[in-house]
Amino acid sequence: MKTPSKSTSATAAASPSGDPYLLTPGPLTTSLSVKQAMLRDYGSRDQSFIDLTARVLRRLAAIVGDGAGDGAGGDPGDLVAVPMQGSGTFAVEAMLGCFVPADGKVLICINGAYGRRMAEMCDYNRRAYSTLEWAEDTPVDPAQIDRQLRDDDAITQVAVVHCETTSGILNPLAAVAEAVAARGRRLLVDAMSAFGALPLDASTVAFDAVAASANKCLEGVPGVGFCIANRSALASTEGNSPSLALDLHAQWRALQGNGQWRFTPPTQVLLALHQALDEFDQEGGVAGRGRRYRRNCKLLINGMREFGFETLLADELQAPVIVTFRMPAHPRFQFDAFYENLREQGYVIYPGKLTVADSFRIGCIGRLGEAEMNGALAAVRRALDSLGIDGRVDSHT
Amino acid sequence: MKTPSKSTSATAAASPSGDPYLLTPGPLTTSLSVKQAMLRDYGSRDQSFIDLTARVLRRLAAIVGDGAGDGAGGDPGDLVAVPMQGSGTFAVEAMLGCFVPADGKVLICINGAYGRRMAEMCDYNRRAYSTLEWAEDTPVDPAQIDRQLRDDDAITQVAVVHCETTSGILNPLAAVAEAVAARGRRLLVDAMSAFGALPLDASTVAFDAVAASANKCLEGVPGVGFCIANRSALASTEGNSPSLALDLHAQWRALQGNGQWRFTPPTQVLLALHQALDEFDQEGGVAGRGRRYRRNCKLLINGMREFGFETLLADELQAPVIVTFRMPAHPRFQFDAFYENLREQGYVIYPGKLTVADSFRIGCIGRLGEAEMNGALAAVRRALDSLGIDGRVDSHT
Repeated sequence: MKTPSKSTSATAAASPSGDPYLLTPGPLTTSLSVKQAMLRDYGSRDQSFIDLTARVLRRLAAIVGDGAGDGAGGDPGDLVAVPMQGSGTFAVEAMLGCFVPADGKVLICINGAYGRRMAEMCDYNRRAYSTLEWAEDTPVDPAQIDRQLRDDDAITQVAVVHCETTSGILNPLAAVAEAVAARGRRLLVDAMSAFGALPLDASTVAFDAVAASANKCLEGVPGVGFCIANRSALASTEGNSPSLALDLHAQWRALQGNGQWRFTPPTQVLLALHQALDEFDQEGGVAGRGRRYRRNCKLLINGMREFGFETLLADELQAPVIVTFRMPAHPRFQFDAFYENLREQGYVIYPGKLTVADSFRIGCIGRLGEAEMNGALAAVRRALDSLGIDGRVDSHT
Repeated sequence: MKTPSKSTSATAAASPSGDPYLLTPGPLTTSLSVKQAMLRDYGSRDQSFIDLTARVLRRLAAIVGDGAGDGAGGDPGDLVAVPMQGSGTFAVEAMLGCFVPADGKVLICINGAYGRRMAEMCDYNRRAYSTLEWAEDTPVDPAQIDRQLRDDDAITQVAVVHCETTSGILNPLAAVAEAVAARGRRLLVDAMSAFGALPLDASTVAFDAVAASANKCLEGVPGVGFCIANRSALASTEGNSPSLALDLHAQWRALQGNGQWRFTPPTQVLLALHQALDEFDQEGGVAGRGRRYRRNCKLLINGMREFGFETLLADELQAPVIVTFRMPAHPRFQFDAFYENLREQGYVIYPGKLTVADSFRIGCIGRLGEAEMNGALAAVRRALDSLGIDGRVDSHT
């Protein structure tokens, strides 16, 4: 089926771990030092781990809450970070389950799979909700949210995804937050794939809670998510959670009490996150990390366009996280063979998740820079060659 | 407050990771090779991780389900393993939420904190339940369970903890399973701290599901739990889960469909578990691991008794996992100073969790053998010396 070209095997790239580079939205390629931080055994109720947890949580809150807006860390003020074991989805479900009370109603803004997933959580948790939907290549519209809030007094919260990983689209979070605040409602943000790379400043964007995870733009390993919450809003959520394990309020209270997690924490994952936050600071926080990702993204898009690939999104809608490319119509382009060839060359890309168009995705986050993006583009060229596509994928020759 | 003796600092022990040995019920001391397995970056939707997941799940199911009863692995037959991100508590809540339907009622057997926690989960999940309670130093009684099942037709499931980590007590699982089956009800087991070290053979113990985690007797790192379930029982749980993230049935279906987890898996934690299962097999499975832990436990108890410490439990009730010692009445014994001194010598022990007696706990699981247990005992001796207790703690001199 697939006939690897000679050039493929001759140029196999490998990251320092020996694994392919992960051009995926997380888990992603992490630094060796982040992984090496896991070569430890910490007791989960021992003081050294209690101290580690406190440091990590304070730093996470400071990324959005120090008021300086530079994401470089500082006093998190009225914000607290609460960790949640599991993937980012666990943190998002925990956020919705705690912050939307049983007698509340949440308006869910949907322009991709992660917005849809929040509605599914509310179905499971039997929380009242309504939705506003946009196509996956269209940002959510604050004016429509405003109208919906005007027309439905029952709505108490609005939930929105900052960067929809489904397409890679950036939603206008600040404008959404303004619309929500103007109508006296509370905002819940799934910032999963944006947190740490795209600015989010609590002093200018009003929110009750933001959910994210260790293994996206913070470049940790998967296994823990967290919510950054307004302290007084969080304090009001006692008794709301429909799940013991996902009870953010109880987790927060336990940590306040004795510094310990209620249930076994993923100790090695926390050690990795602690190291990842050091490297995040060394890069200059949100500003520095965002700069590298934007450079990666631009290199990737320019290079792919030279090969004839089309992006789903116009550049101004594109978050520098993951890029959706339309599946080329070239008769010789077969995605499975393309994927496998790239993988053999040491680059793992990501299948598409769109309903609006046949597509695939390439991420530009993780421990990747100019060299790796150029390496990936050279690999794409060789993969096209191996499929018998000598020129551009839009040439149809 | 604490004045470390000269001998303390002169004899600090350290595991190969440089960390103290964890004489705790998990997270625990893992082998260096288990930790080194995490020095990789796997794509969560890439074939290599799909294959890894399948291997791990098949091996987990085979530990209880190959019919050979030796826990050495084989054909898991009608059993399937379903992973669940998070700590063991997440897996237990997922098990209860899926296997106890909204119109069901579960009888929860309580003789410690983990039994009580299951009742708390049912409160959160709004599942009907009743409880039977025993003191923390008393095993659950199958005859009482039988009477309760006889008297209450509404009960559909029975939930029991195999080894209650609260005290370290071993519950008579086989006899409980017989009583439950004889009354035509279904059994759910929290086997957290027993799984992999104490025999549990699906061909002789009838259960619908067993929940456990990677970081106890399997000697992996924390971050993932799992349920081993009877295939047809699991198939009947569709739509039961009150949580999206904790929906075991949906997780199972997704894995059956394309081999992928629904939501980001803790990839490095899985890599560690895969390596841990290799080392588990090398040790001879449940039989070999249980043998080492029983030896550790016996060494620990004998040594501590020589110092005058009393165990909470009679030896025949003691699981070889964690041992509860009564707090000595010796006027010079101060637990905080004792703990700190042991920690400085390189051994982390565990506080008590009992309501029936003031106590502390010392675990004997993890990558520990005779040398480490003897090292711990020598450290206890030095810690007592440093407290000014020259002889036995029960001598009151």
